[in-house]
Amino acid sequence: MALVPKDNKFAEKVRESFARQPVMAFIGAELLKIEAGEVDIGLPYRNDLTQQNGFLHAGITAAIIDSACGYAAFSLMPAGSDVLTAEFKINLLSPALGDYYLAEGRILKAGKTLTVARGDVFAVREDEKKLIATLLSTIVCVRQKR
Amino acid sequence: MALVPKDNKFAEKVRESFARQPVMAFIGAELLKIEAGEVDIGLPYRNDLTQQNGFLHAGITAAIIDSACGYAAFSLMPAGSDVLTAEFKINLLSPALGDYYLAEGRILKAGKTLTVARGDVFAVREDEKKLIATLLSTIVCVRQKR
Amino acid sequence: MALVPKDNKFAEKVRESFARQPVMAFIGAELLKIEAGEVDIGLPYRNDLTQQNGFLHAGITAAIIDSACGYAAFSLMPAGSDVLTAEFKINLLSPALGDYYLAEGRILKAGKTLTVARGDVFAVREDEKKLIATLLSTIVCVRQKR
Amino acid sequence: MALVPKDNKFAEKVRESFARQPVMAFIGAELLKIEAGEVDIGLPYRNDLTQQNGFLHAGITAAIIDSACGYAAFSLMPAGSDVLTAEFKINLLSPALGDYYLAEGRILKAGKTLTVARGDVFAVREDEKKLIATLLSTIVCVRQKR
Repeated sequence: MALVPKDNKFAEKVRESFARQPVMAFIGAELLKIEAGEVDIGLPYRNDLTQQNGFLHAGITAAIIDSACGYAAFSLMPAGSDVLTAEFKINLLSPALGDYYLAEGRILKAGKTLTVARGDVFAVREDEKKLIATLLSTIVCVRQKR
Repeated sequence: MALVPKDNKFAEKVRESFARQPVMAFIGAELLKIEAGEVDIGLPYRNDLTQQNGFLHAGITAAIIDSACGYAAFSLMPAGSDVLTAEFKINLLSPALGDYYLAEGRILKAGKTLTVARGDVFAVREDEKKLIATLLSTIVCVRQKR
Repeated sequence: MALVPKDNKFAEKVRESFARQPVMAFIGAELLKIEAGEVDIGLPYRNDLTQQNGFLHAGITAAIIDSACGYAAFSLMPAGSDVLTAEFKINLLSPALGDYYLAEGRILKAGKTLTVARGDVFAVREDEKKLIATLLSTIVCVRQKR
Repeated sequence: MALVPKDNKFAEKVRESFARQPVMAFIGAELLKIEAGEVDIGLPYRNDLTQQNGFLHAGITAAIIDSACGYAAFSLMPAGSDVLTAEFKINLLSPALGDYYLAEGRILKAGKTLTVARGDVFAVREDEKKLIATLLSTIVCVRQKR
């Protein structure tokens, strides 16, 4: 299924909104890829973000993949919309041990109000790229009041 | 249903493990309550933790309630166990606007291997305490290798 | 939080819609309670509905609690709306062994477009009522086209 | 990732367990494909299984994809194990209108105790095959007591 953006400045608006998410800078996340319905976010390992065993905390794993999916949805929304996550579910498949984390958000269905996204998070170490988590989320397109 | 801890040093071990989660200190979360099967975590508002509209980012909301539920589960596990979240699902009910966030983790079913927890997150402002998110999670009891 | 119905014929419309769900009659489910934001559905045990160990199949457990939550949401919607489940997540806490199953759907948040419900399923046997599953769902209010 | 079955009679045991799920015969579901970590289940449309708008009820959609994922997991388990779903989450993407429904269960991660599966449900009509639902589930391998 080809996903067609309704706003041809979609990459620009994703980049601009990401820059206004203080938490992304706070944890050190970076925007790696913006295509229509596909957004990747990367996060270098930092001890600050770990849980009691040195793995990336599930909430941080969730934060980067939720943002990747939200922006993948946002990329397909008409100009003048805002994006909100209604809910997500994440399965943590393997211990989140890596030098770098890659979150890939992809759109399964883009509706007028609701968008459904699937996201995968990989832990990257040297030449290994291991799937550590997968997410399914429902995202709302909010029309901005003027 | 009364939840009976199998380790009478449960509060101590929760406190000790929480102290070893660097991400909790990094975001400024604090352990407020530890009872058998019930753990509360608090988080003061910080601009650092917000998304593009100034609300607490869903990943941070998830981080505190995932930890509260994980520790509520951990409080009921036998000595020498470790705790891992297998999966969680969170519904974001209202914009996360508050001066303080309160995450309450509660155990629905504590099995030998799997524990199921329910968690609520409230945004607190002056004399208002508003439910902003609810979570359902599955937590694994890992027996430590000697 | 008091939940106020927008349609004072809410019980009537829930009863009427339930009667138009052929699958409910097919499995033998019955509507037990209709209040604003609260709907209960009951299901007598039938061998037809079980999985390989004689427990109620997870899909049937899901069917009754999804309907209970959907109708709890529907009870709060304005006249002329229709109801659709966007997504749900269910945790199966204990083997679904009982003479009767009771599904209780309750509304956590009723928004204009999205409603969030929580549901519990109990297996009833003689004087025992045991929680066997819990669900969290997102429900959409669809305005009917004229 | 190649998924290696631990029991070379895996297809036989899946077929035998499926035949012992009365609910599958009751709704008219059939086993279409059994490979290591991949099970497909088909379901012809029947008015009996629908909700108030003539679409397949979400619980029945869930029943076939939960079984497909459970058996995909079971195909990888050692002889003498039993399979139980711990939890699942399903997103209903489009109205479930079709002459036939196809549920494809696939394994993302097969652990010793927990297996994580992803499943898709398609509505089939003439030459159209449309994705109507997607599921993420956690499945438990239960060692049978002797």
